[in-house]
Amino acid sequence: MEVELEAGSKEIPDIVVGRLPIYLRALQRMLAEGRRLTSSQELGERLGISAAQIRKDLSQFGEFGKQGTGYSIEFLAEQILKILKVNRVWEMVVVGAGDIGSAIARYQGFTNRGFKVTMLFDNDPKKIGQNIGPFTVQDTSDLEEAIHQAGITIAMIATPSWEAQGVADRLVSAGIKAILNYAPISLNVPGDVHVQYIDPVIHLQRMTYYL
Amino acid sequence: MEVELEAGSKEIPDIVVGRLPIYLRALQRMLAEGRRLTSSQELGERLGISAAQIRKDLSQFGEFGKQGTGYSIEFLAEQILKILKVNRVWEMVVVGAGDIGSAIARYQGFTNRGFKVTMLFDNDPKKIGQNIGPFTVQDTSDLEEAIHQAGITIAMIATPSWEAQGVADRLVSAGIKAILNYAPISLNVPGDVHVQYIDPVIHLQRMTYYL
Repeated sequence: MEVELEAGSKEIPDIVVGRLPIYLRALQRMLAEGRRLTSSQELGERLGISAAQIRKDLSQFGEFGKQGTGYSIEFLAEQILKILKVNRVWEMVVVGAGDIGSAIARYQGFTNRGFKVTMLFDNDPKKIGQNIGPFTVQDTSDLEEAIHQAGITIAMIATPSWEAQGVADRLVSAGIKAILNYAPISLNVPGDVHVQYIDPVIHLQRMTYYL
Repeated sequence: MEVELEAGSKEIPDIVVGRLPIYLRALQRMLAEGRRLTSSQELGERLGISAAQIRKDLSQFGEFGKQGTGYSIEFLAEQILKILKVNRVWEMVVVGAGDIGSAIARYQGFTNRGFKVTMLFDNDPKKIGQNIGPFTVQDTSDLEEAIHQAGITIAMIATPSWEAQGVADRLVSAGIKAILNYAPISLNVPGDVHVQYIDPVIHLQRMTYYL
């Protein structure tokens, strides 16, 4: 099983893996609309991706549709949930209880998409012990032990940028294997730790080029 | 001038344009560290991108470094600022004054990176007129007129997903040309309007594949 996953992660380009969550989101929306069947054409039009690209991406993981009848939305969504391992709920910690961290911790959009924030940390004595939504802000000094004990492997960093690398180092030593970083700085982590970035300015600057 | 930009935007792949903001962020960080010269090797190591890729990307826009001496960080940063048109400040509106919208409106990280939020809208009578950071929440009914009068072309959507398309349609009719969408839904907009998405779940699901 582990060997299979290893092989899989090497064979399939990360850019293809990166499109699966986008397909899944569109499929789940169609399900919510009461739809049952779709096609690569329709998916492509919704997403601005070519039908050929979608068929090619999906074919890397198996045979999910029939020529002529298209895809069963429910079946395809279930398969992608399994491939992405989000047919379960992953617990996450948030480090940084400022505006962004608090908004993420309270965000309703994780529900039913595979994730749940279970801890919120900050190093500010004024914030520690305070309630933010359903969370009591925990002291960052307890980070390693709390994460290790709960067996959590996913974290979101929402600290000022100058604290982000130090926090990342501590998260890694606590056993975190995936970091979503909201601080506008590139992180150095060991090769077996995955990092993704959310920096609105990067997206905005990509658009101003065309304005 | 306009013809030149048109030609440029067709020639250079969007994926290359998308890396420029990441280079710029790293260069600005080096400047803040007091550094003066860098190389494609060093930039590549910081960013996890190959030196050859960085050289190739930059060469599409001009000759920015000298063989052997590397890049002047300040000069290269200035050139990228110009290419991305962020050697000025773009005003932006935020629609949706919930947790996420309020956090974005108050976000300090836009300063010095080319952007400034100047208006915050919501359709909830309980929120309209309230102060959030330096903003008084404006009524979404006034959106078209306010945006049109101010000549603003960039907007961020932070509404519930079922309201996002309707808001996008109104933003477009008000003259908005670039939308950063925080609602977890794909938007349909005319071809001359740019959309980028921020959906943390998409990033998280891309990482769980490897866990």
